[in-house]
Amino acid sequence: MKSRSHETPAADLPFDSTLLDSLLGDAGIDLLLVTSKHNIQYLTGGHRFFFHDYADAIGVSRYLPILIYPRGNAAASVYVANPMECYDRDLGKFWMTELDLSAWGTLDAARAAIAQIRRLGGTGRIGIEGSFFPADAYRSLCEAFPNRELVEAHYPLERLRARKTSAELELLRGASERVVEAMLAVFTGARPGMTKQDLVDTLRREEVNRGLVFEYCLVTAGTSLSRAPSDQVLQEGDILSLDSGGNYRGYIGDLCRMGILGEPDAELVEYLAEIETIQQAARRPIRAGTRGGEIFGEPRRLIARSANRGALDFVAHGMGVVSHEAPRLTDYAPQRYDGCDADRRLESGMVISIETTMTHRRRGFIKLEDTVVVTEGGCLAYGDGGRGWNRAGGP
Amino acid sequence: MKSRSHETPAADLPFDSTLLDSLLGDAGIDLLLVTSKHNIQYLTGGHRFFFHDYADAIGVSRYLPILIYPRGNAAASVYVANPMECYDRDLGKFWMTELDLSAWGTLDAARAAIAQIRRLGGTGRIGIEGSFFPADAYRSLCEAFPNRELVEAHYPLERLRARKTSAELELLRGASERVVEAMLAVFTGARPGMTKQDLVDTLRREEVNRGLVFEYCLVTAGTSLSRAPSDQVLQEGDILSLDSGGNYRGYIGDLCRMGILGEPDAELVEYLAEIETIQQAARRPIRAGTRGGEIFGEPRRLIARSANRGALDFVAHGMGVVSHEAPRLTDYAPQRYDGCDADRRLESGMVISIETTMTHRRRGFIKLEDTVVVTEGGCLAYGDGGRGWNRAGGP
Repeated sequence: MKSRSHETPAADLPFDSTLLDSLLGDAGIDLLLVTSKHNIQYLTGGHRFFFHDYADAIGVSRYLPILIYPRGNAAASVYVANPMECYDRDLGKFWMTELDLSAWGTLDAARAAIAQIRRLGGTGRIGIEGSFFPADAYRSLCEAFPNRELVEAHYPLERLRARKTSAELELLRGASERVVEAMLAVFTGARPGMTKQDLVDTLRREEVNRGLVFEYCLVTAGTSLSRAPSDQVLQEGDILSLDSGGNYRGYIGDLCRMGILGEPDAELVEYLAEIETIQQAARRPIRAGTRGGEIFGEPRRLIARSANRGALDFVAHGMGVVSHEAPRLTDYAPQRYDGCDADRRLESGMVISIETTMTHRRRGFIKLEDTVVVTEGGCLAYGDGGRGWNRAGGP
Repeated sequence: MKSRSHETPAADLPFDSTLLDSLLGDAGIDLLLVTSKHNIQYLTGGHRFFFHDYADAIGVSRYLPILIYPRGNAAASVYVANPMECYDRDLGKFWMTELDLSAWGTLDAARAAIAQIRRLGGTGRIGIEGSFFPADAYRSLCEAFPNRELVEAHYPLERLRARKTSAELELLRGASERVVEAMLAVFTGARPGMTKQDLVDTLRREEVNRGLVFEYCLVTAGTSLSRAPSDQVLQEGDILSLDSGGNYRGYIGDLCRMGILGEPDAELVEYLAEIETIQQAARRPIRAGTRGGEIFGEPRRLIARSANRGALDFVAHGMGVVSHEAPRLTDYAPQRYDGCDADRRLESGMVISIETTMTHRRRGFIKLEDTVVVTEGGCLAYGDGGRGWNRAGGP
């Protein structure tokens, strides 16, 4: 094991450690324990242990990576992880000089982390990701450090990720474009007699064949408002919605597009056009310096005077590594919500998902969801094609 | 909300509630809280919420389903889950009469579960899955019930799953066969100049195209012992190993097969034959009533007298919903390990993965991993093809 007197220059780190230290200072956190896959990915610069990419469970426990980060001393960081991550170590993937690759489960990971925390010393507050720290490991930590306060570290970590680098933006662009391409392929191949499950299975293949990890697909057909994959059989004339998350090297594409098994009538054309108008109105104020809440202004006005106002819903939220993350523009996920970015200024490199949904009792579920990135002068949309009624059989 | 006086007949449940009650009794658990995806899947008879199948994180927290099961009173069970699981409810997927589909994160899930536990009453011990219960929800639970003991519920749940039904066995057969078919397709298409990452990407597509969820692939090429996907370029003559987990409707196929870019020389043929001999020797004693540890007898004797004994390793472990589960035949995953199935009798319907690995410094990584099911008269192997040197370009 290398000495912790070795100092990794901040410039070598795959994240902004100065910003992280500042955010941790604001949160009163002296030692940070990172245990979620997405924050491990972010702080390691892209490492997500391939063996546990999908399933956490193994044996009598589960995979639990722990990145120990002492505020103001990134060079002393420690990574506790699985023995098979030695292959990634040998490939030079880790900037952390101290590695303990001995943990198969939560309790041995906790034991290793506790030993490392003792070695680092200190008596200050420990920040944990409370939703991503298992109870049994938490109990061990409490017993080992009865006099150290354990506090929530979600917010500094989320804030750290809020502005994306150009490399991250390229991955988000790649994710969005691939998801939309895959959806258009599914619409082209859709036929009466297929089921909603068939559509989802096809989308899964289309996404994976484009290099994505398929995350999920919300799907509707006909006038039904049920968005689960099911045995519902597609009928001639059905409208279809696909709202899917696909993961491209750790970054999410999350968009919604509409299809139809036939030709849309005037009413359907009008409804999708109304949704499109709201979506474009939401984009218009977006640029660095705009107050986040302004995104909602014109969409809300448009909905208030729409004949469909009871069926229309508009929402906007940050996205990137997690499907809903900073900037937080609504109180959509109120848990431990302490301050809304609606009153803060948008910053360049923030990525925002904007969604307009019509749940129409007679015509069914009609929606567009788009991904835009905030720039100095405006915004750019990723995967911005296929916004109309995509005909089965192709254009 | 329906009254809890309604009694679901045990015969309607997708699991053996009599066995579960007995196991919970042995563990001193009065009220069970199930929170892992795999045990939720098992107890609901196959439900795994599609929106969070891959990613747990959303917003400022994560998905946390909680199935509340009072010992001896299955009919009073409650399922706390996500609002979008209403679609699955409407499809009739849940046997639980009491549903609270309001939770987007861990703390609102905990809040809902606490209210339901209060309504159910009782003062006895609560069993939790300590590795799959988030720390923040755990803190809420401790505060709500300071006088109720919280104990580990892993073992009764694992034991409940140990013997597979015929329907489960069909899924495990389907998983194993598809994984092996996908591997053979990858070997057939392997060419010098491809990378290990290319092999894994191809295997992912081949598995998904066969209806599997790709979980992971450990991969080696040439004489390297590194099993991570990487940019290592395949060379003419390289041996290849693919050890992959693919998930078929909630059940895991996990096998290892060997390929080669060319023709194996006599030494390679001999080494794989030696591994095959050990694998077959391991199967021979397997039948209902055999002591679990007997599987290790002949393989250990064969290895002890092999010229390659320093390079050979044999292991066997139960599998099914989790890649390592009961029967536990070794102390491979020692965490909270309290009693080894090596001294218990095998039972029909148990599924065992048997693995022989040669890590040969000069020739590379050579391995077979097979899946067998214990029957009354012996054992059956699933996905048992492709056991030799699979040539690139096909047979």
